[in-house]
Amino acid sequence: MKRFITLTIITALTVGSVMADERPRARDLGIAPGVLPTGELNAITDVDGVRVGHVSLVSGDDIRTGVTAVLPHDGNVFQDKVPAAVHTANGFGKAVGFEQVRELGTLESPVLLTNTLNVGTVMDAGARWVLEQEGNEDVRSVNVLVGETNDGYLNDIRAQYVRPQHVFSAIESAEGGLVAEGNVGAGTGTRAFGWKAGIGTASRTLPATLGGHTVGVLVQANFGGILTMDGVRVGEILGQYRFRDVLETGLELELETEQGSIMVVIATDAPVGERNLERMAKRAALGIGRTGGFMSNGSGDFMVAFSTAERVRHGADRSERTISRLNDSAMDPLFLATVEATEEAIYNSLVQAESMSGRDGRHLDAIPLERLEELFQ
Amino acid sequence: MKRFITLTIITALTVGSVMADERPRARDLGIAPGVLPTGELNAITDVDGVRVGHVSLVSGDDIRTGVTAVLPHDGNVFQDKVPAAVHTANGFGKAVGFEQVRELGTLESPVLLTNTLNVGTVMDAGARWVLEQEGNEDVRSVNVLVGETNDGYLNDIRAQYVRPQHVFSAIESAEGGLVAEGNVGAGTGTRAFGWKAGIGTASRTLPATLGGHTVGVLVQANFGGILTMDGVRVGEILGQYRFRDVLETGLELELETEQGSIMVVIATDAPVGERNLERMAKRAALGIGRTGGFMSNGSGDFMVAFSTAERVRHGADRSERTISRLNDSAMDPLFLATVEATEEAIYNSLVQAESMSGRDGRHLDAIPLERLEELFQ
Amino acid sequence: MKRFITLTIITALTVGSVMADERPRARDLGIAPGVLPTGELNAITDVDGVRVGHVSLVSGDDIRTGVTAVLPHDGNVFQDKVPAAVHTANGFGKAVGFEQVRELGTLESPVLLTNTLNVGTVMDAGARWVLEQEGNEDVRSVNVLVGETNDGYLNDIRAQYVRPQHVFSAIESAEGGLVAEGNVGAGTGTRAFGWKAGIGTASRTLPATLGGHTVGVLVQANFGGILTMDGVRVGEILGQYRFRDVLETGLELELETEQGSIMVVIATDAPVGERNLERMAKRAALGIGRTGGFMSNGSGDFMVAFSTAERVRHGADRSERTISRLNDSAMDPLFLATVEATEEAIYNSLVQAESMSGRDGRHLDAIPLERLEELFQ
Amino acid sequence: MKRFITLTIITALTVGSVMADERPRARDLGIAPGVLPTGELNAITDVDGVRVGHVSLVSGDDIRTGVTAVLPHDGNVFQDKVPAAVHTANGFGKAVGFEQVRELGTLESPVLLTNTLNVGTVMDAGARWVLEQEGNEDVRSVNVLVGETNDGYLNDIRAQYVRPQHVFSAIESAEGGLVAEGNVGAGTGTRAFGWKAGIGTASRTLPATLGGHTVGVLVQANFGGILTMDGVRVGEILGQYRFRDVLETGLELELETEQGSIMVVIATDAPVGERNLERMAKRAALGIGRTGGFMSNGSGDFMVAFSTAERVRHGADRSERTISRLNDSAMDPLFLATVEATEEAIYNSLVQAESMSGRDGRHLDAIPLERLEELFQ
Repeated sequence: MKRFITLTIITALTVGSVMADERPRARDLGIAPGVLPTGELNAITDVDGVRVGHVSLVSGDDIRTGVTAVLPHDGNVFQDKVPAAVHTANGFGKAVGFEQVRELGTLESPVLLTNTLNVGTVMDAGARWVLEQEGNEDVRSVNVLVGETNDGYLNDIRAQYVRPQHVFSAIESAEGGLVAEGNVGAGTGTRAFGWKAGIGTASRTLPATLGGHTVGVLVQANFGGILTMDGVRVGEILGQYRFRDVLETGLELELETEQGSIMVVIATDAPVGERNLERMAKRAALGIGRTGGFMSNGSGDFMVAFSTAERVRHGADRSERTISRLNDSAMDPLFLATVEATEEAIYNSLVQAESMSGRDGRHLDAIPLERLEELFQ
Repeated sequence: MKRFITLTIITALTVGSVMADERPRARDLGIAPGVLPTGELNAITDVDGVRVGHVSLVSGDDIRTGVTAVLPHDGNVFQDKVPAAVHTANGFGKAVGFEQVRELGTLESPVLLTNTLNVGTVMDAGARWVLEQEGNEDVRSVNVLVGETNDGYLNDIRAQYVRPQHVFSAIESAEGGLVAEGNVGAGTGTRAFGWKAGIGTASRTLPATLGGHTVGVLVQANFGGILTMDGVRVGEILGQYRFRDVLETGLELELETEQGSIMVVIATDAPVGERNLERMAKRAALGIGRTGGFMSNGSGDFMVAFSTAERVRHGADRSERTISRLNDSAMDPLFLATVEATEEAIYNSLVQAESMSGRDGRHLDAIPLERLEELFQ
Repeated sequence: MKRFITLTIITALTVGSVMADERPRARDLGIAPGVLPTGELNAITDVDGVRVGHVSLVSGDDIRTGVTAVLPHDGNVFQDKVPAAVHTANGFGKAVGFEQVRELGTLESPVLLTNTLNVGTVMDAGARWVLEQEGNEDVRSVNVLVGETNDGYLNDIRAQYVRPQHVFSAIESAEGGLVAEGNVGAGTGTRAFGWKAGIGTASRTLPATLGGHTVGVLVQANFGGILTMDGVRVGEILGQYRFRDVLETGLELELETEQGSIMVVIATDAPVGERNLERMAKRAALGIGRTGGFMSNGSGDFMVAFSTAERVRHGADRSERTISRLNDSAMDPLFLATVEATEEAIYNSLVQAESMSGRDGRHLDAIPLERLEELFQ
Repeated sequence: MKRFITLTIITALTVGSVMADERPRARDLGIAPGVLPTGELNAITDVDGVRVGHVSLVSGDDIRTGVTAVLPHDGNVFQDKVPAAVHTANGFGKAVGFEQVRELGTLESPVLLTNTLNVGTVMDAGARWVLEQEGNEDVRSVNVLVGETNDGYLNDIRAQYVRPQHVFSAIESAEGGLVAEGNVGAGTGTRAFGWKAGIGTASRTLPATLGGHTVGVLVQANFGGILTMDGVRVGEILGQYRFRDVLETGLELELETEQGSIMVVIATDAPVGERNLERMAKRAALGIGRTGGFMSNGSGDFMVAFSTAERVRHGADRSERTISRLNDSAMDPLFLATVEATEEAIYNSLVQAESMSGRDGRHLDAIPLERLEELFQ
C-alpha cells in the first residue's frame, strides 16, 4: 500500500518522513466499523476536489510537531467560499475562526491544524497566505480556521517551533489522492488512548439509493478514554485505559496535567447548507464516543464540516442567489456516514502511527499491531 | 429480581401492569458496558432522594402510552430548586421548559415524560400540580420540564389519551428504590432499533478515590440506528437495523414517516453547577452513540441533568449565597459515568420491554432474549 | 382610524371589546422612531399573507387575559411550512416550540401568544387544531410555537382561564388588514414600564433600492425598565421607572415578585433562510433596548421570525430543492427595519392600551396621552 | 481634565501620543445617558484591580493601529483565573479565545484588542507573554483572548504592523486610574458612525441599596448605524448616517466593502459566575442599540465579561471549592449598569477621538464638538 508523504526541509529543521506504508490501516486488520461502504481511498480526499497537505517537524529530541492543511477545492477559497459549519463538543481548546463560520455559514480559508501554542502563528500565516493569493489584493479581512491539539507530551511545545513557512508549505503541498496518516503534519507528536497516534482519515460513499454522496473525515487525534475498536475492548485487554490504576488498585488518581483533544474535519459533496453541516458536525462526537472517548474535561473536541457542492462568491451583490439543498429527510445516511468515518479515522490515526520518542526521554509506543491482529482476525 | 410496578386505574382506562420482573436486565445477560461500578440498584434512584413514578395507559388496541415523573427530592421542588442543565442533541422534538433551565440553571418542577402530542396536557397538569402544592399559594409562574417521544407506532397518539390526573398520579406515586423498566410510563408504547423498548435506567457510583459520587440515568428510548450492545453488532446479527434493505438489496429507501427520539434524565449527588451539568448532559449523547444510535433527522434527542447536592431557594433576596462546587479537574469520572449509565440504561430499556401489539394490528417484538444469551454468554 | 376588533363570546366569559380606535397610535403623536418608511398599515400584516387573530377574555374583576394568533399564510402551515428562526434574549419564560425551530429552521404551526400559566393549554389546543385541519389526517407530530408573558398583575393567572376554544377562535378569526392593539388578545392584561400595555405592531417597507422588502413586527409587551420614546426620557419625566424609589429616596428596593417579559414576532417577505432570520430575531433585542428595556432578570424575552417567501413542503422526498436566498450583503436594511419596527411596536402597545382594573382592586393607568402630546408636539 | 497616555517608542515606529485631554468626555458635554451613578473615574478601572494599557502605532500615512490590554488583576492571571463569559452578538469577526471561556467560564490571560489582521500575532505574543511570566514555567496550554476591529479604512491593515513587542508593552504598561480614550491603542485607527472613533470607557457604581457593586466597560468602537446620543438624533441632524444617500436621494446603495465591529470588555467586582456574566455580556448589545448601532452584517460585535470577585486557582485538585454568588434576583441593577456604561463608553469613544488622516489620502473627521455642545446644552 502506497502513500504519498510530504517531505519538506525547512530552515534548520529536519522534517521527518514517516513511512506510514510500513503499517496497515485499520481496515487491513479487519477493523471495519459500520455498515456503509467506504469511498475509493477511504480518505477525506474521496470528496472530489479536497486536498490535504502536511508539514512534519521532527528534529533532535524536542521537535515533534507540524501543520496539516485541508483545502475544500483548488480554487481561491476566499473568493469562492464553501458552505460550512462548526461544532464545539468540548471547548477546552484554542481553535480559531469558529465565530465567523457560525455567523456566516461559510469557510473562506484552508482548514489548518497545528499544536496548541502555535495557533497564533498559524492563524497569522494563514491570513498572510490568503492576502497574498492572486486575486486577493483588496482583501482586508479574512477568517482563518485553525484547529489544534496539544502535542506537548513529546514535543517541546513551549518553544513554539512552527513558523509561517511551514504553514505556507502545508497549504501549497496539499493534493488529492492518498493521505499520509499517523505521525505526520499536525499529528506528528500526538497520542491517543495512551499510544502514539496522529492524523487519520476515512470516508463513506453512499449507495445511489441513499443519495450517492461521499462524506470524508480527517482527524488529528490526541485524546484519551477507554479504547474500544469496532466494539472490542482493546484498552482493557491491553491494560491501558483511563482510570485503570484507580479502578484496579484503588490508588489515588494523579491529576492530569497534559491535555488531550481531537480536531475533526468533515467534507462532503452533498448539497447541504450550514444548518445540516452543523448537524453532521455534531454527529462526529458519536464517532468519538464509539471509540471510547468521553470528551474529558481537558480535551478540546472541535469539528468543522464543509460542503464542496456550492461556491459562495465573495463580494456578492445585494441580489438573491439560487441554491440547491438536500431535504432534511435525506440527511440520515449522511449522519451515519459521518459517525462511521469519524470512528474509522480515529482507528487509522492509531494504527498508522509508529512508536516515537521525544522530549525529556519520553516515549510513546505504537498500538501493538500483532495484538490487534490476534483480536480482529 | 423484583420490581415495583405502578398500578393505577384511572377513569375508563385500564392501566397495564407489565411484569417486568419476568425479564432480566441487561447486566443479568452479561451486557455490562464500561469500567465503572454500578450503584446499588443500578438505577437513577441510586442518587439519594431521587424518585420515579409511572402511569402506564394500556387499553384496547389503541392506547399504549403513559407518563413518567422523575423528582429530584421529596420536598417542594419549586421552593427548593436544584441546579440543572439541558442539552438538545437533536432538536426535532417538542420538549418544553428548556429555555428557562438554560437561562437560570435550575429545575423547579418534576421532570415529566410523555408522548409527543400530549406535551401540552402534561405541561398544563404539571403547572397545576405545582400551583396546588402546599406552600405554593402565591406562585404565579412555574417552569415545567416535559420531555416526549413519539409512541405513535403502537399508540393512537392523535387521540391524546393522557389526562391531567395521569400526571398527578405519576408524580404522586413516585418513590425511590427499584424502578420499573420496559413497557411502563412514558415508555409504554415506545420502540428502539426496531424492537419494543421503553423506560430504562442505570447508574454508576464512583470509587472514593474518584470522588465517590453517584450518577443515575433514566431514558425513554424510542430511537433507531444499528444496534450494538457493549460492542457486539446485535442489529446486524439479528438482521434488523436501519438501511438494511437498501444496503442488502439495493431497494429504494422508504421515506420514514414515524419519528424516533430519546429523552435522557441524568441525576447526580455531586456538587456540580449548571455549567458542568450541561457538560454531563452533552456526554449522554456519547452513550447513545455507543448503542448504535446516530441522532437521525427525525429523532428528538434531549437531555436534562440535575444535581441533588444543593437547594436554590425560591424568592431568595438580593444577597449572596455560598455554594460548593467540584473543580473542573474532578469532572472526568462523572463524564464517564454519564456515558456508561446512558448506554446501559438504553440496553435495559430494550431488554426489559416485552412484545406488544397496538393500533391497526401493529406489533413490536421484544428483543429476543435467547439470542442475546447466546451472544453474551 | 378604524381597527377590526375580535369580538367573541365564549362559554361564560365576556370577551371585552376594547375600542382601540379611541386612542391614537404612537406615530399619530409624533413618536416616529427610525429612518425607514413604514409599510402601508404600519403593521405585521403589511407582510403579504400574514394574518392576526385575537381572543380577549375580560370578565368580572379577575379575568384579564387572552390569546393572539399570528399565521404566516392562509394555507395549511403544517403541510407548507415557512423558514423560521427563534432567539431567546432572556430565557426566564415558558415559550414552547423553540427547540424544533432551532433544529429544522421551519415553522409548522400558527404562532400563539397567551399568559404564562396557560401555555400548556394553548400548546395542546394548537396541536389539536393542526391535527384536525383538512389534509393533516395522518399527522402524528406537530411543533406548536407558543409564547407568553405574565399578566398576573391584573389577571388571576393561577385560575388558568384560557380554554382550547379560545385558541381555536383566535386562529380562525385571524385576518389580514388592520391589527387591533393595546388591551386585546394575549395583551389584554399586560403592562409595561409601569403602565397598561398590550399588543403592539409596526412595520417597515424598504425602498426598492434597498430591496423593497417588508418587515412586520408584533409584540406582546409586558416588561419594564426606564422608558424612553424615540429618545425622550418619558419614564423619568413622568416619574415612573425602575429603581426610581431607590435612586431618588435611598429606600431599600423591594424584591420584585411579578415578572415581566416580551414576545416579539417578526415577519418578512424577503427570501431569507433560518440563519438570517435568526440574525433578524437577534436585532429585535436592540429595539427593546431603544425603548429603555434592559432584559431584566425575570423577563422572558423571546423572538420568533419567519419568512413568507418560501414554502417548505412537509414530507418532501429525499431529493434536492432549489431555493432563493438573499445574499448576506443585502441584510442590513432588514436588520435596521427589525430594530425600528420592534421599537415602534412597543410604543404602540403602550399608546394604544387603555387604563384597566383587575383582580384584588389593582389598577393600571394608561400612559397619559396628553403628556405625550406635550412632549412630542 | 488629565489623562494618562501610554507613550511608547517601539522599533522604527513612532507611537503617537494623542492628547486626549484636549477634548472633553461625553458627560462634560451633557451627554449623560441613564439613571445610575458613574464610578469615580467613569472608567473600567473603577473596578478595583483592573488595569488598562495601550500601545498606539502612528507613523507616516499608513500606520494607524495598535494594541489595548485589559488585565483583571495585577497578579498572575493564568494561575489565578477569574470567572468570565463571552457573548457573540454578531460573529462576523476574528476574535479568539471564546470557545474555552464558554466551556470553562474563566479568563486566564489579559484581554487583548487589536486590528483584524493582526489577531494571530497578538494571540501568539499573548501566549508567549503568559508562558514567560514568573510562575508559569510549566504551562503548556493557555487560552489567550483577543478581540479586534477592522481599522483598514485609515490603516494599511494588510501590512500587519503589530509586532509581539507591542503586545508585551501594552500588557506591561497597563495600570489603573485614568484611561486614555479616543485614538489610542486598538482604537488608534477606528471609526464609528462615519466619524473618527476609538477606545471609550465608562462605569456605573451602584448605590449600596442596590448592592454597591461597580460595572466598568471599555469599548473598541468601529461600527456604524444611525447615531443617537442619549436619545438625540445626532446622525440625522449632522447629516451623516447609514443609508442616508439611498433614503434622501433614491440612489442605489453602494456595496459596503469595509467592515465595522465593536469589542466590549465588561468588568465587575460583583460576585457573579459565568452564567450571570454571560447575561451581563448580552445586555451590552442593548447599549449598542441605544447609540443607533444595529449590528450590521459586516460588524463583528463581541463581548467579554469578567468578575474580579473570585480567583479560580489553576491546577486545583479534585476537591470542592466554596464560592459566593449573587442571587439572580440581585442582577437587575448590574444588567442596567452594563447597558448604561456600554452606551456611554461608545459616546466617549467618539467624543474623545480627534480627526485623523491615514492611508491613501483618507481622512476621518472627529465628531464636531461645537455641534454637540449646541445640541446638548
